[in-house]
Amino acid sequence: MSPWKAAQPGDLLSEVDTPALLLDLDAFERNLQRMADALQGRGVRLRAHAKSHKCPAIARRQIALGAVGICCQKVSEAAIFVEAGIADVLVTNQVVGATKLRHLADLARRARMGVLVDHPQQIQALADAARAQAVTLDLYVEIDVGGRRCGVPPGEDGARLARQIADSPPLRLAGLQCYHGPAQHLRTPAERAAAIAATVEAARATKQAIEAAGLAVEHITGAGTGSFLLERDSGVFDEIQAGSYIFMDRDYGDNQRGAQDIAFEHALFVRTAVLSRTQPTRAVVDAGLKASSIDSGMPTVWQRPELRYVKAADDHGVLVTPEGAKIELGEALMLVPGHCDPTVNLYDEIICVRGGRVEALWPIAARGALL
Amino acid sequence: MSPWKAAQPGDLLSEVDTPALLLDLDAFERNLQRMADALQGRGVRLRAHAKSHKCPAIARRQIALGAVGICCQKVSEAAIFVEAGIADVLVTNQVVGATKLRHLADLARRARMGVLVDHPQQIQALADAARAQAVTLDLYVEIDVGGRRCGVPPGEDGARLARQIADSPPLRLAGLQCYHGPAQHLRTPAERAAAIAATVEAARATKQAIEAAGLAVEHITGAGTGSFLLERDSGVFDEIQAGSYIFMDRDYGDNQRGAQDIAFEHALFVRTAVLSRTQPTRAVVDAGLKASSIDSGMPTVWQRPELRYVKAADDHGVLVTPEGAKIELGEALMLVPGHCDPTVNLYDEIICVRGGRVEALWPIAARGALL
Repeated sequence: MSPWKAAQPGDLLSEVDTPALLLDLDAFERNLQRMADALQGRGVRLRAHAKSHKCPAIARRQIALGAVGICCQKVSEAAIFVEAGIADVLVTNQVVGATKLRHLADLARRARMGVLVDHPQQIQALADAARAQAVTLDLYVEIDVGGRRCGVPPGEDGARLARQIADSPPLRLAGLQCYHGPAQHLRTPAERAAAIAATVEAARATKQAIEAAGLAVEHITGAGTGSFLLERDSGVFDEIQAGSYIFMDRDYGDNQRGAQDIAFEHALFVRTAVLSRTQPTRAVVDAGLKASSIDSGMPTVWQRPELRYVKAADDHGVLVTPEGAKIELGEALMLVPGHCDPTVNLYDEIICVRGGRVEALWPIAARGALL
Repeated sequence: MSPWKAAQPGDLLSEVDTPALLLDLDAFERNLQRMADALQGRGVRLRAHAKSHKCPAIARRQIALGAVGICCQKVSEAAIFVEAGIADVLVTNQVVGATKLRHLADLARRARMGVLVDHPQQIQALADAARAQAVTLDLYVEIDVGGRRCGVPPGEDGARLARQIADSPPLRLAGLQCYHGPAQHLRTPAERAAAIAATVEAARATKQAIEAAGLAVEHITGAGTGSFLLERDSGVFDEIQAGSYIFMDRDYGDNQRGAQDIAFEHALFVRTAVLSRTQPTRAVVDAGLKASSIDSGMPTVWQRPELRYVKAADDHGVLVTPEGAKIELGEALMLVPGHCDPTVNLYDEIICVRGGRVEALWPIAARGALL
């Protein structure tokens, strides 16, 4: 961690040291409200994904606007949010290993804790961990609805796991996890609609198989920023796990919006400065891949479409500039990160800005919580 | 940061929680020694690049084996090493902005500090900062020797900056930075040799231009793990900035070694566990791109060449496995990261392992030091 901070509350935006992670509070708050409005009165609740922000201050704002709780990807990440007072956390992942299971069960003393399963051994291990600490855990059977990552195939495989959960008190069968990750970044509305139509059918078929076995499916949860209106309107899903909608990143911005899709705004930026300008068609900035993750491609330069960020090294970003472009040594630029989640994970604080001033610093408390 | 640690000294390797960053101390120490041996008696000194490890415990070991000091990429990174007692630090980067310049000059009260320049304005600003705190700074003129990032063209442009430095006490003309980044990962020895031959010529020509102006070029510094034997034997370079040699990563491992090249060993690993195994040709592990940076491609699975890590999400890694491969739910694997520098930057500690036991935890003190 740097021994000094990039900014303090009250500083002018123009004084913020670089590189630094900035949140445009006005845009962020509009994004929060747009999501709340989109789900209002639809019988579908938001369980916001906290892996995008890792920040309790943001989770509290999501819950204040109606989110039932949050999702996390890691038990240690969940522990930080429970410690910060979040009362309902779903770990949207399989959890293996005695240490993690013990921590997960311990968290269930203080919060409602959910977790995914796709294998009978996991259910047995979770039952042992829950019994050892006399707690209840909500289990969701993960269905592979097209992401080809975790999850059992739709239908009878899911029903078998559901039966095992129902027969393993104090575990509770809470429902199905039906998240289609790759569908979030299919570029056209038609591609996303086709992928989620198949997702919905997979969820429906599994629900029917479980109900035919005499068990209830309380929740069907999933969806992300790229597709959630489709799950919302499916008649099958009752919970949405979107995360990136609060920030938006270049990758989500590259999706073509359909007529119904919501225009979330870019609210997360990396402020950077030009540190070298030796050629007429090149400028080098101080934000490289340790400041703006490039796993989903390069960042763009906010409101400067003539500048192209073409290459990232650890601590340098190379911009191609038009000949004669006005861009000076030391000049500050704002980058729109290619992918918000791993970019946030590179910083210890989000610098919240409004009206050209720093309003607050929010700790990214779960930064680096990998266990 | 996770609220609990992945391991404690004395733990068995088999008990280390996942994902976690491991250092094989035996391999690491052999790598340190191989570099010391390669430079011994050659009139070329090592200034090890600390951006790879961000860890004072490692910098001290490099200096104990003969390194004159370290390189850093950021002033805040340098501050952490100076605070830890490192006495000679070169910031291998241009530094812009009054805040950073003030911190850089402040560090020069406690350590010998060097920095790069490629523009007259930077020299002026550095002179002002050094005078304000009555300190000396070592300035290196950066030459663009083929990396097409920072630096002035070889020859007269470099000589003009050198003259300006010499005329700007208390700045000191320390030499030339001639680092060719892209050459490090050219795959064949012949390609690397051709690139560095041009680099050496660029350095030599600039040195001659500066000497023709009546100034001395004390040091010519640069080189990385992929090319440093070429610079060592150039007769022009007297300082090597290699960093990754201590760890090696998959990307450096993909370089074809020439007859003279040194067989540095993979010493840095991400320990991960299988969290899902629902298909005969797929396993999913708990180390995704927040645990092993994919900017230079996917990690490989150590000593399990039949397992291919093909896709990384934030917190999942997808392996393709041969049908019938023996790989079980919960099983631990070791990944060789695609790129060591940004992977180290994702963790707070390096877990040092020897003989199947955890020997020490070394803080990655400069993790996230971006300013």
